[in-house]
Amino acid sequence: MRIGVLTGGGDCPGLNAVIRAVVRRAEVGFGDELVGIADGWRGLLEGRTLPLDVERCRGILPRGGTILGTSRTNPYAAPDGPARVLATAAELGLDAIVAIGGEDTLGVAHRLAAEGLAVVGVPKTIDNDLAGTELTFGFHTAVQTATEAIDRLHTTAESHDRVIVCEVMGRHAGWIATYAGIAGGATAILVPEEPFDLDEVCEVLRVRHAKGRYASIVVVAEGAVPKEGTLTLAAAELDAFGHPRLGGIAAVLAPEIERRTGIETRMTILGHIQRGGSPTAFDRVLATRFGVAAAEAVHDGAFDQMVALRAGQIVRVPLAEALAAPKHLDPELLHGVADWFRG
Amino acid sequence: MRIGVLTGGGDCPGLNAVIRAVVRRAEVGFGDELVGIADGWRGLLEGRTLPLDVERCRGILPRGGTILGTSRTNPYAAPDGPARVLATAAELGLDAIVAIGGEDTLGVAHRLAAEGLAVVGVPKTIDNDLAGTELTFGFHTAVQTATEAIDRLHTTAESHDRVIVCEVMGRHAGWIATYAGIAGGATAILVPEEPFDLDEVCEVLRVRHAKGRYASIVVVAEGAVPKEGTLTLAAAELDAFGHPRLGGIAAVLAPEIERRTGIETRMTILGHIQRGGSPTAFDRVLATRFGVAAAEAVHDGAFDQMVALRAGQIVRVPLAEALAAPKHLDPELLHGVADWFRG
Amino acid sequence: MRIGVLTGGGDCPGLNAVIRAVVRRAEVGFGDELVGIADGWRGLLEGRTLPLDVERCRGILPRGGTILGTSRTNPYAAPDGPARVLATAAELGLDAIVAIGGEDTLGVAHRLAAEGLAVVGVPKTIDNDLAGTELTFGFHTAVQTATEAIDRLHTTAESHDRVIVCEVMGRHAGWIATYAGIAGGATAILVPEEPFDLDEVCEVLRVRHAKGRYASIVVVAEGAVPKEGTLTLAAAELDAFGHPRLGGIAAVLAPEIERRTGIETRMTILGHIQRGGSPTAFDRVLATRFGVAAAEAVHDGAFDQMVALRAGQIVRVPLAEALAAPKHLDPELLHGVADWFRG
Amino acid sequence: MRIGVLTGGGDCPGLNAVIRAVVRRAEVGFGDELVGIADGWRGLLEGRTLPLDVERCRGILPRGGTILGTSRTNPYAAPDGPARVLATAAELGLDAIVAIGGEDTLGVAHRLAAEGLAVVGVPKTIDNDLAGTELTFGFHTAVQTATEAIDRLHTTAESHDRVIVCEVMGRHAGWIATYAGIAGGATAILVPEEPFDLDEVCEVLRVRHAKGRYASIVVVAEGAVPKEGTLTLAAAELDAFGHPRLGGIAAVLAPEIERRTGIETRMTILGHIQRGGSPTAFDRVLATRFGVAAAEAVHDGAFDQMVALRAGQIVRVPLAEALAAPKHLDPELLHGVADWFRG
Repeated sequence: MRIGVLTGGGDCPGLNAVIRAVVRRAEVGFGDELVGIADGWRGLLEGRTLPLDVERCRGILPRGGTILGTSRTNPYAAPDGPARVLATAAELGLDAIVAIGGEDTLGVAHRLAAEGLAVVGVPKTIDNDLAGTELTFGFHTAVQTATEAIDRLHTTAESHDRVIVCEVMGRHAGWIATYAGIAGGATAILVPEEPFDLDEVCEVLRVRHAKGRYASIVVVAEGAVPKEGTLTLAAAELDAFGHPRLGGIAAVLAPEIERRTGIETRMTILGHIQRGGSPTAFDRVLATRFGVAAAEAVHDGAFDQMVALRAGQIVRVPLAEALAAPKHLDPELLHGVADWFRG
Repeated sequence: MRIGVLTGGGDCPGLNAVIRAVVRRAEVGFGDELVGIADGWRGLLEGRTLPLDVERCRGILPRGGTILGTSRTNPYAAPDGPARVLATAAELGLDAIVAIGGEDTLGVAHRLAAEGLAVVGVPKTIDNDLAGTELTFGFHTAVQTATEAIDRLHTTAESHDRVIVCEVMGRHAGWIATYAGIAGGATAILVPEEPFDLDEVCEVLRVRHAKGRYASIVVVAEGAVPKEGTLTLAAAELDAFGHPRLGGIAAVLAPEIERRTGIETRMTILGHIQRGGSPTAFDRVLATRFGVAAAEAVHDGAFDQMVALRAGQIVRVPLAEALAAPKHLDPELLHGVADWFRG
Repeated sequence: MRIGVLTGGGDCPGLNAVIRAVVRRAEVGFGDELVGIADGWRGLLEGRTLPLDVERCRGILPRGGTILGTSRTNPYAAPDGPARVLATAAELGLDAIVAIGGEDTLGVAHRLAAEGLAVVGVPKTIDNDLAGTELTFGFHTAVQTATEAIDRLHTTAESHDRVIVCEVMGRHAGWIATYAGIAGGATAILVPEEPFDLDEVCEVLRVRHAKGRYASIVVVAEGAVPKEGTLTLAAAELDAFGHPRLGGIAAVLAPEIERRTGIETRMTILGHIQRGGSPTAFDRVLATRFGVAAAEAVHDGAFDQMVALRAGQIVRVPLAEALAAPKHLDPELLHGVADWFRG
Repeated sequence: MRIGVLTGGGDCPGLNAVIRAVVRRAEVGFGDELVGIADGWRGLLEGRTLPLDVERCRGILPRGGTILGTSRTNPYAAPDGPARVLATAAELGLDAIVAIGGEDTLGVAHRLAAEGLAVVGVPKTIDNDLAGTELTFGFHTAVQTATEAIDRLHTTAESHDRVIVCEVMGRHAGWIATYAGIAGGATAILVPEEPFDLDEVCEVLRVRHAKGRYASIVVVAEGAVPKEGTLTLAAAELDAFGHPRLGGIAAVLAPEIERRTGIETRMTILGHIQRGGSPTAFDRVLATRFGVAAAEAVHDGAFDQMVALRAGQIVRVPLAEALAAPKHLDPELLHGVADWFRG
């Protein structure tokens, strides 16, 4: 068979490990020919490909990023987009496509499958908010990076009796904030799923610091929002989404916490370092298993499906099911665990 | 309630995170009093305890080791052992005990439960070979440590066109070797579950190096054994278990691979660095969830059980079930994945 | 002898290693008694001390922060400050004080020495801008942390053909920016010592990206300023120092680079993670050597001096000399090296 | 000019950073043409080269190993070796050669310089025992790797009240052992420069452990040897150099320490992981500065010299001077510092 491979959406540690595994399993195991598609769906719109074989995948396992490039291009937003994608796939002689991406990329895959494209999905989201799979690769790497940063913030906060607000990724989901917050021993964890009450947070900080010299870390997901009426964000500072224009939510919270508690407060915004770097061993293994399973799904003709992790096993899940709704943060984690570590 | 906490067996990254979580959940949430028991079951035999409360657990979350100390002492091997343990527990006024340990520690817990001790188990094994739970904390940290070592070996092996044999932990189980081998891009992975054929391994190496300059890493679990008749270990070099007396299995394999293939071969034995260091974010979260759940199990009177991870959820499992048989390495991993990466 | 030890100013990886070394050398080697002074010079103003001996220093070598606490309190700004410090030192029966700190802390030490205080300095600045010593501990750790972050930014920038602006510490000195920029393979490095021309930077980026898909990293010290007339920072966004109120200089540069070049540009502000974490091996050794040398200087009566590194040797330098002027960034590094890596 | 670049001897983190810097400075700055010579001096014997330019050096800065390959081949040991090297250099039209290597590689460079080869040296030794330069790149990376391993050993040793013997690189020089031992808080450091007395070491361990539960780490350089008469190594276990045949010196010390002290003792042999991995930021900067300076030395006609670090500056040193004698471990470090940390 002749199989195209593409990566779409934001980049994520482990993409290269998936690509390498698809290629290894398909070329060595099935004798397939592989075609690299450049920059996600855009590559099929524009007919741009890259040579892809076992030799070209040497050494990429531990590397972040994606050797295929990526984009957020949606063919359904382009004139004649879907038709051009199908035409390019036919011209390239592709029998199937492995699409590695998140909600958007897999949403396109699902719609194109309905139009006849033979496509297998591999779920990718650093935010871990994709349904149908217990975990996605890249998530643990992002959590590890954020946790190491929080570990560092602890030692500096301790020396100065400070609060430090640490902003992590998560526009719609609090998974990274919750995991990194628990792993980093945060005093408060603010997530998009539950509007936060800043007075409550400040009260916890006041009680804690009244007991003596302590470092306190407040982990906040970039998409966390205050409970109505508890924190006014000056209009001038907001972008179109109601988030602070410069800095982020942390840039608003830090001075406000200092004002309300009287405790010196600093902030840090981790940003893109959470998407970069070498994937953790865990993510490399998960990404490799996903890649192997995707190549096998192609040979089983299991199209319009994605590979997924459930109870330690790799399974196949219809794309429709995975795309039905985002995976909300487990409340057991947020309250059952994090609550006891606030004081 | 008054709850004793002990850690038994080999140490493991995440023990301190479990201890902290039990203490936090019990003291802050339930108003319990905690008692630290020194050095596993030995502390109960000898009546040695340590003060344990929220304050004493400050800062231990990211630290390897166990603040309670540990030992391999089995009360059933000591004169009147079980009776003395029960007597000490009564003298200390303990309503329940949280025992954090592996097969041996939990085996003792199960037998003492039959004699009336109120005990809840927390599974601990760096080797991940305990049944009843999909994962144990510490395992991922060990895999991460081994993988980072293998990453380093790759760059040095590449410069010299060498084979490097890397020996990792796993006397009876090949989980660490398999995960670290996949994550590290090993050419061959040798595990205790399947006797290996060294000629087969050498053939793979020969074919690979004939194609050009390549580094090859052979990951071998310390308990891996050769297929009968394929490799003679000189009697003088073996210890009572049939393993090489000095060095380890790697110290035998490296010169033998060099002799059979003609390719320069070196070895490294990772040893105890795999048990040490700060737990990964993943292991800290798992350990924390286990600790919280153990404190809750005590309050639910769920004795003679252990907490476990299944499909992302923390559940309770009868100790009897967990101890029935070791958890064998998943063959999907060993063959379904690793095989395609040999060449 | 009875020796007080204090740490002042911003915290810095390696402070604990210095403390431990002073204590070890003095207590074990000379039989001295040690007194920990809380929170820098503030502790002497307020008479707050901490017990300090070999036992209390166990395990602190690899830990960031300072077990003594720190502050920026300047006794010369307090009513009767210097007199109170001298009185407290006398009351505590201190024969000498080891003051670990930067320009401010050592400046106070120098003035107090003139008033009769027996004080030995240990130079500390994460920014490496203190004269008299080739290197200060903590600097290499900060550079390492920043470099690892830049490594991560590279992989994500590559996948998206992006520019990423990375803001590092350095309000007055570009040492961290220059070292981390060289080590991280930055395309441009902006430092406080030389006003930058943003058009020049944009031209380099445009030429580079015109050649194909490349990640470009622009490393900017927080104190870097534009050449007059080349970049207007809107008044509303500036703080009293002329720096952007929210975010930092990176928050201004990123959108402006995107506007001028048309290349997607993102930013990250590393902030306090550069001060935290375990010191590198290099910094632990340097800090330990400084601590040992400081205890020996006390016994030699070498007061009003600080220990320093010159050509690999630990020497003593009069505080007056070290405080005469800041250590400017070596132009060989900035131009002789960095320039060839711009394209 | 047309410049050949080669790397010889054992590999070392930072080789790629040197190569990249030579190429960048020469091609971008001087308009030179570069030629990669494969596998050290062997490449010149056999006429094997690799294309080398700015483009081919993309992304290699943070990678361990050497893209040029390396070997220990000595042309002076091959029939007509030197003549063949000179002839190949002439055939390739090389105006000069940058030779990156240690004592052996630079020794050959020096002899070939006498025969007319225009060669500039870049000092490389992971052991830091090359004279003429205060530091060599790769050394700090090896020390960092060893220190992180020792950190891990501490946490596991503490939980079990154990001694752990950690064998590090250094056949003739104790630099790595001393730096990593100080940075890792070792109880004893054994180096090749001074035969050790095992009874003395055991006494220190006994006293220390008698005070309570402690982890003790003994760092031993692979080339450390016992004082005559203090430790008998059974003849059967020794290789031609008098070192244990399997394992290493650690494999002999660990059981012997356990026998003499009664304290449970384990060992680990770090081996080749010390040569691998990404260079530290410090080593990347040093390697880059060396590379830039080597290209400039070529253009200044400063042949038969090597670049070196002295007092923070890059200077040139005649190869003859650098090769005159190895750089012995600074006794200030070994005794002035390490001694106070034994107890």
